[in-house]
Amino acid sequence: MKKTMLAVVKEKAAPGVSIKTVPVPKPKKDEVLVKTVYSSICGTDIGIYDWIPWAAGHIKPPIVIGHELVGRVIAVNSSQSTAIKPGDLVSSETHIFCNHCYQCQINNRHICENMSLFGIGRNGGFADYATIPLKTTWKNDPSIDVETMSVQEPLGNAVHVVTKARVSGKKILILGLGPTGLCAGSVARAYGAKEIVGINRRDYRKKLAKKMGFDRVESSITPKEFNTFDVVLEMSGNPEAIRAGLDAVRIAGTFIAFGIPKQKVELDWGKYLINKELSIGSVFGRRIWETWYQTTDLLKNKRVSLKPMITHRFKLAEFNEAMAVMKSGECGKILLEA
Amino acid sequence: MKKTMLAVVKEKAAPGVSIKTVPVPKPKKDEVLVKTVYSSICGTDIGIYDWIPWAAGHIKPPIVIGHELVGRVIAVNSSQSTAIKPGDLVSSETHIFCNHCYQCQINNRHICENMSLFGIGRNGGFADYATIPLKTTWKNDPSIDVETMSVQEPLGNAVHVVTKARVSGKKILILGLGPTGLCAGSVARAYGAKEIVGINRRDYRKKLAKKMGFDRVESSITPKEFNTFDVVLEMSGNPEAIRAGLDAVRIAGTFIAFGIPKQKVELDWGKYLINKELSIGSVFGRRIWETWYQTTDLLKNKRVSLKPMITHRFKLAEFNEAMAVMKSGECGKILLEA
Amino acid sequence: MKKTMLAVVKEKAAPGVSIKTVPVPKPKKDEVLVKTVYSSICGTDIGIYDWIPWAAGHIKPPIVIGHELVGRVIAVNSSQSTAIKPGDLVSSETHIFCNHCYQCQINNRHICENMSLFGIGRNGGFADYATIPLKTTWKNDPSIDVETMSVQEPLGNAVHVVTKARVSGKKILILGLGPTGLCAGSVARAYGAKEIVGINRRDYRKKLAKKMGFDRVESSITPKEFNTFDVVLEMSGNPEAIRAGLDAVRIAGTFIAFGIPKQKVELDWGKYLINKELSIGSVFGRRIWETWYQTTDLLKNKRVSLKPMITHRFKLAEFNEAMAVMKSGECGKILLEA
Amino acid sequence: MKKTMLAVVKEKAAPGVSIKTVPVPKPKKDEVLVKTVYSSICGTDIGIYDWIPWAAGHIKPPIVIGHELVGRVIAVNSSQSTAIKPGDLVSSETHIFCNHCYQCQINNRHICENMSLFGIGRNGGFADYATIPLKTTWKNDPSIDVETMSVQEPLGNAVHVVTKARVSGKKILILGLGPTGLCAGSVARAYGAKEIVGINRRDYRKKLAKKMGFDRVESSITPKEFNTFDVVLEMSGNPEAIRAGLDAVRIAGTFIAFGIPKQKVELDWGKYLINKELSIGSVFGRRIWETWYQTTDLLKNKRVSLKPMITHRFKLAEFNEAMAVMKSGECGKILLEA
Repeated sequence: MKKTMLAVVKEKAAPGVSIKTVPVPKPKKDEVLVKTVYSSICGTDIGIYDWIPWAAGHIKPPIVIGHELVGRVIAVNSSQSTAIKPGDLVSSETHIFCNHCYQCQINNRHICENMSLFGIGRNGGFADYATIPLKTTWKNDPSIDVETMSVQEPLGNAVHVVTKARVSGKKILILGLGPTGLCAGSVARAYGAKEIVGINRRDYRKKLAKKMGFDRVESSITPKEFNTFDVVLEMSGNPEAIRAGLDAVRIAGTFIAFGIPKQKVELDWGKYLINKELSIGSVFGRRIWETWYQTTDLLKNKRVSLKPMITHRFKLAEFNEAMAVMKSGECGKILLEA
Repeated sequence: MKKTMLAVVKEKAAPGVSIKTVPVPKPKKDEVLVKTVYSSICGTDIGIYDWIPWAAGHIKPPIVIGHELVGRVIAVNSSQSTAIKPGDLVSSETHIFCNHCYQCQINNRHICENMSLFGIGRNGGFADYATIPLKTTWKNDPSIDVETMSVQEPLGNAVHVVTKARVSGKKILILGLGPTGLCAGSVARAYGAKEIVGINRRDYRKKLAKKMGFDRVESSITPKEFNTFDVVLEMSGNPEAIRAGLDAVRIAGTFIAFGIPKQKVELDWGKYLINKELSIGSVFGRRIWETWYQTTDLLKNKRVSLKPMITHRFKLAEFNEAMAVMKSGECGKILLEA
Repeated sequence: MKKTMLAVVKEKAAPGVSIKTVPVPKPKKDEVLVKTVYSSICGTDIGIYDWIPWAAGHIKPPIVIGHELVGRVIAVNSSQSTAIKPGDLVSSETHIFCNHCYQCQINNRHICENMSLFGIGRNGGFADYATIPLKTTWKNDPSIDVETMSVQEPLGNAVHVVTKARVSGKKILILGLGPTGLCAGSVARAYGAKEIVGINRRDYRKKLAKKMGFDRVESSITPKEFNTFDVVLEMSGNPEAIRAGLDAVRIAGTFIAFGIPKQKVELDWGKYLINKELSIGSVFGRRIWETWYQTTDLLKNKRVSLKPMITHRFKLAEFNEAMAVMKSGECGKILLEA
Repeated sequence: MKKTMLAVVKEKAAPGVSIKTVPVPKPKKDEVLVKTVYSSICGTDIGIYDWIPWAAGHIKPPIVIGHELVGRVIAVNSSQSTAIKPGDLVSSETHIFCNHCYQCQINNRHICENMSLFGIGRNGGFADYATIPLKTTWKNDPSIDVETMSVQEPLGNAVHVVTKARVSGKKILILGLGPTGLCAGSVARAYGAKEIVGINRRDYRKKLAKKMGFDRVESSITPKEFNTFDVVLEMSGNPEAIRAGLDAVRIAGTFIAFGIPKQKVELDWGKYLINKELSIGSVFGRRIWETWYQTTDLLKNKRVSLKPMITHRFKLAEFNEAMAVMKSGECGKILLEA
């Protein structure tokens, strides 16, 4: 094994990254060392690249960024019994839970009160090698396509959102057709929705949505469809979309909030929320590990395919070019080959 | 029986009311005629009195106002079989459902799509006599105190809110201590909450809250109690209170929205809603008739007493004086004797 | 309109029926008169034909039997406002609720405490004409195939069962492949089940199941599949099948009971129920009208087709021949043409 | 610290126990060593004492029996970070989960597929000292009475049962008034039940039930109370009681199964289960750690007191005398002082 590797490093508290050679990390106690096969760029990585306030509040440079990956296990440094063995293809769950707080103790590890984040609060996966805490390492089912293994986190977000929404037989509106929104359409289809309508202004994304199983994609919701959707999934984080979704959902309908707006959101609370007697659920990350089992089932049984959504592939060394495409919005998921 | 009666009438599309003699109404088909025993003033009646935009949008004068009452049945004009007989003490459910729309057909009559409102969209109960649609007439359990029979609607709101919140063993925050907030404290106590904290700035209401079973009443919520409440019940409709409640609720907690703000509400959607993975339910009115059965049980079995909350009694002719007290905020429920 | 009609009448408290000419009924107050287009034979009708104890306990001859039908409205005898008009194609909900008991009042009309039954406790639909209570008359969506309109009750049972089971992404076992079991497979498919396995010993039914969307059909469940099903739907009422289902369901799984056994059922309560921490739901009839809306959606949007299940068509006069096929078990649904 | 200690040992695959001096155990990796303060006898211990088939199937002698205890931590043998420190008063959760199976991974550790049992599958707590796996060690809130700390497992069973049943405002029947049944009454009271009726034939237990907060205790359920209970909690494991409970529960009611019968149970499946459209939940053990948090809250806030239920105290050396009282049924919980 090599001693050094290529990595995408946030070196300074400033926009941009360095693509540089660094030592291959050693797995600490209860960590796994993997040879990265693919990593993928998340919307969060744009904010990290651009050093938005959220990134500044969460990252202490220097750090290897990147939190979506599939890798092959090189070594497991643990005395605990585990099913994870060298040679396994594993993915990482970004949310590193503490196992001790109240939420962890009551089986809500995904909303741990002391969460740290892979590729954000510690070194991540945009590198030839990575170490992952054993407790957030997911052993992939080998029947799943290897590229797809890297992009299971947005699928997992979508699965958590759609599961909470209970879509069987329902008319669904999905606002925002980034990867999680696209996945939400596919999952809603697989989970038995009656009709799935997506909203996005960008033609590129509309076309992708059609491939991912949406019945219909529109640029915006029109008043004649107000109050007609059983379920609204808000995947955009756009305040206008949030309001449009609250207009679109029917009396006694369900609204699931996933997208995080950058600005404050102004609402007509009485009109939207109370007069319709809505149920609003919100989703953070993915359930650990319920969601991953569901994700595996969907992929293994070919009920969802993420291949149409993987639109670009770059070498790790081409990270800046990949990021430029990512920022253009004319893409689905972008894979990085390590 | 007399031919004329005293009634509180909104005669013009303007603030104020007329207290005047009008003909005793005749029950139409499938209506009940009652001799009013008590009626009670709801917060909504202040807006009607003051002719706020909501009132202007819902009322076509002239109309006898008032929607909370208990009355003795004089006549039932219906060929339908019914358990309601002359002599019964009945109350009225304000929300007159159509029985034909989708929500009525799927057993959500309380959020009927074609709702009309007793004492708002048709003549109501601030009068010596009133007619009530048979379908929204509730036959009271005779073991319940007669004054209390008049004020079951705010109790019902509270029951619907608290039932949706599932309070057993939970730490509860109640924002706003008007009658529905006060009732919510009593119901949460009866339904097994662990600790019940109320928020109100007014000393009068704080004292009432103590009598109604709250463990503790504060003027505001302090940062050290942020993220510590399992359940928040928002009964005030105050945008600041809504934000305080979203601060107060814990990760994975439950927030129930009942109060309707006059202004738009500005929220930090991501911080409040998504990062905590909250469940937000909203409540409109009361379930017909599940809630009324629950209300009856609570009163009949003395698990809730509304007597401490009935703070003032006026003659119907003294309606303007009663309204002045109502507006002062230095009161609980105000009864009108017909 | 004719004055007399052909009808299948249970004339005596004994096995068999009379196919005879009787007067066309007149609709009573709040009833609808229909010209029957199709009626269909339910498993219950076999018990009525054979005069099993259940039938003897529920039927007072003479009575026109038959409770599944589609008919064209001839007249509506009611002063109530209603969307049902002459010319409409309507179906009947068998369970005639009282609208006054506790269950009706709390929005569980389908399990009314004073239920009467169409075609069992009063005259039914195996006749050229039938009267139906307005309150149990369902106006069909005209885009649905007319034959299918007659067989919506077993589909509705299946919808209620599958809805309660929450099948999205789950591995499902369906025990018993009579019409409700067959429909349950189609509905589970439409509502997003991961894998659907049916159990039936009869080849005829196995073949039908394949056409209705089952992934796999077996004669029995083998020990290697014990504890592997997320959800078991018991549609047979066979005590052995009930036990097999309890073996098949996984720890923390869901078991929905629909089939009604003729004998008592002996269970290993601790092994089956408690050690697995199961949830057992049971289903009676269909939700009025939630289920019918769902049924309509499934048919209208072509997410379920009942055509493969309609295997035989007879003239009403050939009722005895139809019943013979019904009893043979070598059939799906049997339609009677009026 | 001493090197030897007194312990209650099942030495042979036969009825009875030996009370003998054995070496003080050493905590293995990720185990805690405690000085036992109190232990308490569970109904399961009777079966172990008498060597019933269940015991023979689960125990490989020699083993120190006993699974309910409170002890003071002497040493923690672990390199994991933990809040448990020497000096802490801790209790043990009997169900030792594997953390690796599907149920553990989906946050159902209490129904682990590879469960081992403290004091049954490994040495337990009827001894001066005991070792407990760190992962099943619960740090007690110091404000709770020390005797009570030993008997939190039956309280936890009751909390899990009552939580699943959702008792707020409901009429509850509790069948079987052993410690879990008695606790269920207290918890149902604290969680807001409307009325709590207990069934037991033994006067001793009836008297205890009154002290624990039941409204009424009867020897059996009479037909006039059939179909009148919103919720039935079956804590006896008696087939007749199971059937009585199914008679007692109302249409659309909830039945929670906890008691495990020794014999098979014969049921009228259709009459009991389907015609009433019941929901049957079952409960195994306690949720880890949700239930323990709830238990702590109830005790700390004095909403439940277990003191009336602790009826006997013996020295550990008097175990056989304690067991004789236990078998007589004329007792609540029996404490052993180490």
